[in-house]
Amino acid sequence: MDLLAPDVQTTVDSRLEDLATPCLLLDEARLRRNVTTMKQHLAALGVGFRPHLKTAKCLEVARIAMTQPSGPATVSTLREAEFFAAGGVRDMIYGVGIAPQKLDRVGAIRKRFAADLAVILDSVEQADAVADWVKTNGDALPVLIEVDADGHRSGVAPHDQATLVAIGRRLIAGGAQLRGVLLHAGASYGLSDPVAIAAAAEAERAAAVSAATLLRQAGLPCPVVSIGSTPTARFATHLAGVTELRAGVFMIGDLFQAGVGSCAIDDIALTVLSSVIGRQRAKGWIIVDAGWMALSRDRGTARQAVDQGYGLVCDLAGKSYPDLMLIDANQEHGIVAVRPGSDAALPELPIGARLRILPNHACATGAQHDRYHVLDDSGAVSAVWPRINGW
Amino acid sequence: MDLLAPDVQTTVDSRLEDLATPCLLLDEARLRRNVTTMKQHLAALGVGFRPHLKTAKCLEVARIAMTQPSGPATVSTLREAEFFAAGGVRDMIYGVGIAPQKLDRVGAIRKRFAADLAVILDSVEQADAVADWVKTNGDALPVLIEVDADGHRSGVAPHDQATLVAIGRRLIAGGAQLRGVLLHAGASYGLSDPVAIAAAAEAERAAAVSAATLLRQAGLPCPVVSIGSTPTARFATHLAGVTELRAGVFMIGDLFQAGVGSCAIDDIALTVLSSVIGRQRAKGWIIVDAGWMALSRDRGTARQAVDQGYGLVCDLAGKSYPDLMLIDANQEHGIVAVRPGSDAALPELPIGARLRILPNHACATGAQHDRYHVLDDSGAVSAVWPRINGW
Repeated sequence: MDLLAPDVQTTVDSRLEDLATPCLLLDEARLRRNVTTMKQHLAALGVGFRPHLKTAKCLEVARIAMTQPSGPATVSTLREAEFFAAGGVRDMIYGVGIAPQKLDRVGAIRKRFAADLAVILDSVEQADAVADWVKTNGDALPVLIEVDADGHRSGVAPHDQATLVAIGRRLIAGGAQLRGVLLHAGASYGLSDPVAIAAAAEAERAAAVSAATLLRQAGLPCPVVSIGSTPTARFATHLAGVTELRAGVFMIGDLFQAGVGSCAIDDIALTVLSSVIGRQRAKGWIIVDAGWMALSRDRGTARQAVDQGYGLVCDLAGKSYPDLMLIDANQEHGIVAVRPGSDAALPELPIGARLRILPNHACATGAQHDRYHVLDDSGAVSAVWPRINGW
Repeated sequence: MDLLAPDVQTTVDSRLEDLATPCLLLDEARLRRNVTTMKQHLAALGVGFRPHLKTAKCLEVARIAMTQPSGPATVSTLREAEFFAAGGVRDMIYGVGIAPQKLDRVGAIRKRFAADLAVILDSVEQADAVADWVKTNGDALPVLIEVDADGHRSGVAPHDQATLVAIGRRLIAGGAQLRGVLLHAGASYGLSDPVAIAAAAEAERAAAVSAATLLRQAGLPCPVVSIGSTPTARFATHLAGVTELRAGVFMIGDLFQAGVGSCAIDDIALTVLSSVIGRQRAKGWIIVDAGWMALSRDRGTARQAVDQGYGLVCDLAGKSYPDLMLIDANQEHGIVAVRPGSDAALPELPIGARLRILPNHACATGAQHDRYHVLDDSGAVSAVWPRINGW
């Protein structure tokens, strides 16, 4: 391999001992199990599935998660849309409110790949911009109105009929397709009680149905009612009136989702492989070559009942050491120690020993890397799957 | 440009209004000013300069920061070493404790580019591994012993003559070059009082000189005495006995360093360009398309006297709006609002308006991107400079 080749290596070092560290490992069996569980759950609830690809950012993972190789899917950047369209995905929602300057790029993806790429918006001002773009370009862009499920971020209030209808009428008058409504119950990430999350899921569903009903009452179409977050997807007990769900992080899982209760620690499919590069015995520290650059700066578990530091430490087989975690991280250094207050023993590990670290946040940790080393059932590396980053 | 081309575009959109957002902007005049100030300061102190390239990870920036196109320089990953060696840098220290498995890659870089790439270590166990490697490969690898300046991370205690000498003797007996000692006063990042930082700089210097003296007293060579951190570099008043300094983040600056006092906010050369994609008027929120993916999850200023959220918000000319900051961030959404407690007005900005965000941590924010858009004195984009990420 050329030293400067930006592309991902195609030969596979099959042993974890041979990989350059730090790097990402992806447990394919766990990934497939997480996807199967979610698909069965959604089938039982009678809703469609439009997995969010923002966590995995990987075509091979997308093909496992999607119901068909052509989609449907959700993306968080137009670079993802381009990447997945080139890989055969034809049905996508770009799930971040559209800026007018991005419409030409959306149109180029739709045209080049004959892709059904839809955008979202939550203001008449954006609807005006879309209508102007449709008029100029002759492409009847599909649009979903973003509705605010829980005050977390963006979206029209679910009972604000005046705004919903004004946006819908403006889009249709301008020649765009009003595809439906879209919500994201982001506040559910702050919960950990299954009953409370189920209530958040019901609130998300009710808000979605409210907005859809208001549009239909005004004589406007609303074929799609799209909701999505991993916690609410996991704990929803009925989704009447919803047509599709867009969860994403569930397929990989992480310590934060385990803290919410959306997955078990044994469901987490992603670890960062690292090497021991030093020790400070008097302090009870092992230094590894995975710092925050390899794990991300995400400290989401600091706000949960159990703070997992920068991650939990496992052996090469993926088995956790009791109470061993990354208590701190510098750019390329991780400090491994026993959890404060625990009387667990610090393992005796030589320089060069390999450890696997379970991350706080799969979306953030994944984004620090350009590839996954995929583990098969034997724990060997069976493939290298590229990831896409950037915008 | 091909939609999937992983390489960086070579044509330049010269107007900020034409760039796809989010993206990185680098103010070249500020970068050059920061470098000039540091070089003058170090020249006055009589020490050499080996800039750390881990923040910029960019050849064009390296050439501005280094005293010569061939170096010296410091790198934090072997991928950086390969990238900068290919760009003509020949004198580098890989400033993270060496794992034995990485020695072959170090040797390959040294051989392919005829580069003087040195490694660091802090244990006899590592020295044994290096000695074995040198014996097998016949390459007299240069090695610095990492010394612990302040209990922050790695390193031999500065007064532990037995360990220092044992490492040094093992290296020399094995045919490696004992190049010297290396320290990093990482604890200085937790300070903000110039007097305290000057004291930390003096402690770092004294520890370095102590370790070097102990080696020399044992008849071992110690030509290089290398220290480095941006705060201690900034506030050191004398560096007798030190031969070189390795600061890195100073060249770009960030809100965290401004909180430490290592730079002024007007020295920060890096911003993230973003677009307004929504508003929640009742809450006083403007939503932009720069979330934590574009800014990183770094919230280092949360531990400082002034918490800057996920960053301070500026207009297109780089002028801060009074008390306007990113109060929260999702993956691709930033929530802009007036600082809690401030009575500053929220600016009235249309959808699609452009904002620039000053980051908490230049190393972390930079790593989320693969290129810099370089601004000239007129505020136009004069060039696109690629960055290297990964390992």
